[in-house]
Amino acid sequence: MSNRLGSKYVVQIFGQSHSPMIGAVIEGLPAGIVPDMEFIRAFMARRAPGGALSTARREADVPRIISGLNDRGETCGAPLCAVIENGDARSRDYDSLRDVPRPGHADYTAAVKFDRHNDIRGGGQFSGRLTAPLCFAGALALKQLEQTGIRVRARVLSVAGIRDADVDPVHPPMDGLCEGPLPCVDPEAARRMAEAIEQARAEGDSVGGVVECFADGLPAGLGDPMFDGVENRVAQALFGIPAVRGVEFGLGFAAAELKGSAHNDAFIVNDGRVLTETNRHGGVLGGITSGMPLVVRAAFKPTPSIAREQRSVSLSRGEVAPLAVSGRHDPCIVPRAVPVVEAAVACALYDLLLND
Amino acid sequence: MSNRLGSKYVVQIFGQSHSPMIGAVIEGLPAGIVPDMEFIRAFMARRAPGGALSTARREADVPRIISGLNDRGETCGAPLCAVIENGDARSRDYDSLRDVPRPGHADYTAAVKFDRHNDIRGGGQFSGRLTAPLCFAGALALKQLEQTGIRVRARVLSVAGIRDADVDPVHPPMDGLCEGPLPCVDPEAARRMAEAIEQARAEGDSVGGVVECFADGLPAGLGDPMFDGVENRVAQALFGIPAVRGVEFGLGFAAAELKGSAHNDAFIVNDGRVLTETNRHGGVLGGITSGMPLVVRAAFKPTPSIAREQRSVSLSRGEVAPLAVSGRHDPCIVPRAVPVVEAAVACALYDLLLND
Amino acid sequence: MSNRLGSKYVVQIFGQSHSPMIGAVIEGLPAGIVPDMEFIRAFMARRAPGGALSTARREADVPRIISGLNDRGETCGAPLCAVIENGDARSRDYDSLRDVPRPGHADYTAAVKFDRHNDIRGGGQFSGRLTAPLCFAGALALKQLEQTGIRVRARVLSVAGIRDADVDPVHPPMDGLCEGPLPCVDPEAARRMAEAIEQARAEGDSVGGVVECFADGLPAGLGDPMFDGVENRVAQALFGIPAVRGVEFGLGFAAAELKGSAHNDAFIVNDGRVLTETNRHGGVLGGITSGMPLVVRAAFKPTPSIAREQRSVSLSRGEVAPLAVSGRHDPCIVPRAVPVVEAAVACALYDLLLND
Amino acid sequence: MSNRLGSKYVVQIFGQSHSPMIGAVIEGLPAGIVPDMEFIRAFMARRAPGGALSTARREADVPRIISGLNDRGETCGAPLCAVIENGDARSRDYDSLRDVPRPGHADYTAAVKFDRHNDIRGGGQFSGRLTAPLCFAGALALKQLEQTGIRVRARVLSVAGIRDADVDPVHPPMDGLCEGPLPCVDPEAARRMAEAIEQARAEGDSVGGVVECFADGLPAGLGDPMFDGVENRVAQALFGIPAVRGVEFGLGFAAAELKGSAHNDAFIVNDGRVLTETNRHGGVLGGITSGMPLVVRAAFKPTPSIAREQRSVSLSRGEVAPLAVSGRHDPCIVPRAVPVVEAAVACALYDLLLND
Repeated sequence: MSNRLGSKYVVQIFGQSHSPMIGAVIEGLPAGIVPDMEFIRAFMARRAPGGALSTARREADVPRIISGLNDRGETCGAPLCAVIENGDARSRDYDSLRDVPRPGHADYTAAVKFDRHNDIRGGGQFSGRLTAPLCFAGALALKQLEQTGIRVRARVLSVAGIRDADVDPVHPPMDGLCEGPLPCVDPEAARRMAEAIEQARAEGDSVGGVVECFADGLPAGLGDPMFDGVENRVAQALFGIPAVRGVEFGLGFAAAELKGSAHNDAFIVNDGRVLTETNRHGGVLGGITSGMPLVVRAAFKPTPSIAREQRSVSLSRGEVAPLAVSGRHDPCIVPRAVPVVEAAVACALYDLLLND
Repeated sequence: MSNRLGSKYVVQIFGQSHSPMIGAVIEGLPAGIVPDMEFIRAFMARRAPGGALSTARREADVPRIISGLNDRGETCGAPLCAVIENGDARSRDYDSLRDVPRPGHADYTAAVKFDRHNDIRGGGQFSGRLTAPLCFAGALALKQLEQTGIRVRARVLSVAGIRDADVDPVHPPMDGLCEGPLPCVDPEAARRMAEAIEQARAEGDSVGGVVECFADGLPAGLGDPMFDGVENRVAQALFGIPAVRGVEFGLGFAAAELKGSAHNDAFIVNDGRVLTETNRHGGVLGGITSGMPLVVRAAFKPTPSIAREQRSVSLSRGEVAPLAVSGRHDPCIVPRAVPVVEAAVACALYDLLLND
Repeated sequence: MSNRLGSKYVVQIFGQSHSPMIGAVIEGLPAGIVPDMEFIRAFMARRAPGGALSTARREADVPRIISGLNDRGETCGAPLCAVIENGDARSRDYDSLRDVPRPGHADYTAAVKFDRHNDIRGGGQFSGRLTAPLCFAGALALKQLEQTGIRVRARVLSVAGIRDADVDPVHPPMDGLCEGPLPCVDPEAARRMAEAIEQARAEGDSVGGVVECFADGLPAGLGDPMFDGVENRVAQALFGIPAVRGVEFGLGFAAAELKGSAHNDAFIVNDGRVLTETNRHGGVLGGITSGMPLVVRAAFKPTPSIAREQRSVSLSRGEVAPLAVSGRHDPCIVPRAVPVVEAAVACALYDLLLND
Repeated sequence: MSNRLGSKYVVQIFGQSHSPMIGAVIEGLPAGIVPDMEFIRAFMARRAPGGALSTARREADVPRIISGLNDRGETCGAPLCAVIENGDARSRDYDSLRDVPRPGHADYTAAVKFDRHNDIRGGGQFSGRLTAPLCFAGALALKQLEQTGIRVRARVLSVAGIRDADVDPVHPPMDGLCEGPLPCVDPEAARRMAEAIEQARAEGDSVGGVVECFADGLPAGLGDPMFDGVENRVAQALFGIPAVRGVEFGLGFAAAELKGSAHNDAFIVNDGRVLTETNRHGGVLGGITSGMPLVVRAAFKPTPSIAREQRSVSLSRGEVAPLAVSGRHDPCIVPRAVPVVEAAVACALYDLLLND
């Protein structure tokens, strides 16, 4: 069903932007784990709004675990459920949005699908807010992956066409990204991206970007052929993040322009281990991990909710109607999407690991 | 599991390149349908090798339906199983490939995953040959979609960096593509692509490309939020095709470079129907169809099997070993991938329709 | 995964007896429904402890819906999550139970499975308390079924070998069962059952029984052949209720003793509708509903937690240890199981209906 | 979907009684196994018709593996597909059955479900013939279970009310059952059962019975709580066998008549292992294996197809019509069901083992 991810590490997300709570039910964690709440909170804080580049909405986003732990605070084998209160939801009138859907947003398609009973408040279940419980599940997965030596790290590859520096995917930048809301290899690129975001905000507009995610320490042999391989599962998770329009692995679309002789990665032996000399394949061959770092990119469209007046229609009157979206909206979702991409990839990889 | 797609239109594919047969078990078709074998054969012929641009391997690829039909040749509600004989499989020695994996191919990852018991003959279960039963399932889905007015059509957008002409995604080219193995809007682009493929073959090399697929006639409201939306399902199907490295919807990665004001599609009313004026969103908003044409692209890497000598390793000796792949291989998989993309998209869309 | 039921009406249950909350996440309800909280509370009250025949534990069991409703209180298409506080959980020492498992209970098997991290408090996730969210989900399903004319009703067929009167399964007693904790056709049988339960309590012992459930108004044609038929799905739901040891349909085990000529139900025509004259098949033929009332029975073992001293072992010392279970326990689970059986059957039937 | 069982050991069955072939696609076997065709054929022969107590239909039932093996005959990680030709299917007129459904059979419900397109020949997909591929899958599972010391063995507990001798479920009769089509502990009971079957045949009638299945060598800790426990999964598999009307574990329905003090099995320690002194729980507590032998029973109704004239209706004329079923039918399905029960239990147990 719609809000569930995974077959062994199963994440069931629930909630809407303005429902009393949002949360996740998680099955598949081994028993005996004490969730590292400090780590979880720090990870989720990266996604939380409030940064200089984000919306003004304040959310504590403190997850409360309401099931799944025994009296010693360890996972007990029962599904773990965590909830987050939706505290700062402004009570205002959404009737106008209900009638005049925002261009580029799910308002219209949700109205059709749910026969106009969709929750219009704050984007309802289509809100980026739903990525908070995904980050909770991702943080738990990251901790589990870490124990087997697997690390997952994302950077902002581009915003508004401004690109970070290239990296060698044989040695992805798991550490050493610049701090702040736009983790990049090149701090100067991050600075220029931030400027572009600020300028878009000033113009009542928005910008998009690309997040690139790496995972190293993966054993070779994870993933299944055809429809259940690494790409299929990671893509399913990433397309679950609002605003993602494309997902690519290794060289991705750029691979389509190369010759085979220039794209194939030669196998080498290093200390008895089989590796590839280069990593254009991004760590996956035939849907199965090769042992080289995973490289995956997700393209985010510009935030559809913009202050500028746009053309829409009144669903009730069946005629054109102008629309200016008020409220608090990120001029660029990319900074907050970085941990969300890490979370989605971590959930998919941990599920692959448990299925092995 | 690995070779199964869909939740209501379920396609279970089986076989390897050189197993006695390959085939598919299909659940979810309504009872009472008489499979249009003429249409199926014609559709599958587009994927079959033997064209000027393809391998020399001849396959009749005539599917035989061995279950699922009643005595009048109608679907009876039981799973439909179709098999295809693997007639023209050359009996030769694959021991060298077993020891020296082909760069860019699944030989190595399959050897690790399956503890060196993987079927090395002709690529085993990783062979593009497995897309024949996918095309069978896709042809059945296409016929069902057609009855509700939904059409699916793919073109070659680029090969080796040579691009076809742009189209207006509000009016995608469902008809009017040039004939031949490289369906394009611009026959001249197709001609130059063919040249590039021939040149790659002459050089013992290969090239990749991008296939763009359109679907029109879709009702608004198909698909589910988050992890079970149109993008998630279509991407899962497309990444099941060997050599796909990226999947994008609407403007895809290009959307990441635009401002919101330039990317959002204004809603309009036309004859009482809500449409969008432009179609940068590619027919999907929030994982749900908008009623506008679906636009999706899949990037294919260059065929990894090339005649040129490459560097690999001997798994048994743990040392570097040169490799020159003999045998029949497509210098470019893109021409044959066009119907396969249509099949994958059709299976996913029909599944969405049945889930509605 | 373990706590999830259904493919279209999906019920994901979470919680343990003494976790902060228990609850359920439900997907598959149509949008636009206003949950009938009065009906839900009344239905859940039938399961709640506190009756003369039940434990002394008081639970308000008031479900709170924390997601899935829009601002008008209607289902909005997002997963509906309801939570119930675990208020009256006595804080006491469970260390003895952790070491000395209760005979007939899951203490030992859970300790093995979860490496002794299982939540031992109040039976943890194996507690009958987890049937409260199942009843919540069942109440919603019952309301949906009711709208298509389908009714579900269970009675106590037997307790401690004392049987209620026979009924004609062509006309099952959807109404007219006696009131009170032991709904029977024959109030005298109910009275004797109650006596047997009271006597068991007085002896520090427990008794089991059989619950029989009927559903009428079912259309013919629901259910799928082989592994996804009515019996498979209903049995999966019923075996999810703690203490169920057997499930049978129609005449069930008694059918095994009949001849075909005495077991087959003759088809008849009534007002143009095809019916069967008798209903020994219990409404299901070949996994598919026949349009006749569904008849299913579930056997409940006697409550394993009894006050009498029993023989067990100390897991830490590896030696025999006596055990006397203190705490509040139902001497017979059957009265409270009646609505739980209705809920499980309703969830399975509604899922079948949505899959049709 | 309907014909698929399992989540890690996945068995997809296809075919109808008179389709060109029947078969199964199996995922989840480890790579490197050489299927023991001798064992498989011997196992399937137990199910095949032709015994003194069975139908006169002769089927070679030789499964042919058409995918999933490498050039050395080992499983290669790809789905294994096996097909069986439907050789001896008499071409005759089924039009009468199409119009006048057999009482007790799926003819009518299938006609409703599949809008009268169901395959009426030989019972179509509802035929007991579909248990042949289930036995194929079960034989593979049995071999895998055997390697971890798990054995599965079924006996005929009763036919037409004639019961075999009681056994101690702590030491189930894995060996030592009498030979022949009715494996019993007491050869005299088997003889009397055979007589009852012969008499039913002579009378143009049929009889039912109960098959009891044991599995020993199971580790403690298999199975998941609630809806994915041992009972849920085994019951799902067993209700997939045509004619099964009830499934019970341990004492099953008899447990409902006992007191807790008489039903609970005391824990004991033996050589450092925790066991139970008695085995009334049948090896499962809380949905999880206890390490004691699994005990499960399946009730089979009498074969609905009988030679005696029965009352049915003409669907086309909407009026009562007499029916006398000609053709070859088992007067009792129980003898042939014994290996089928073993196969179903083995598939479910192996799936549980792979999910552990």
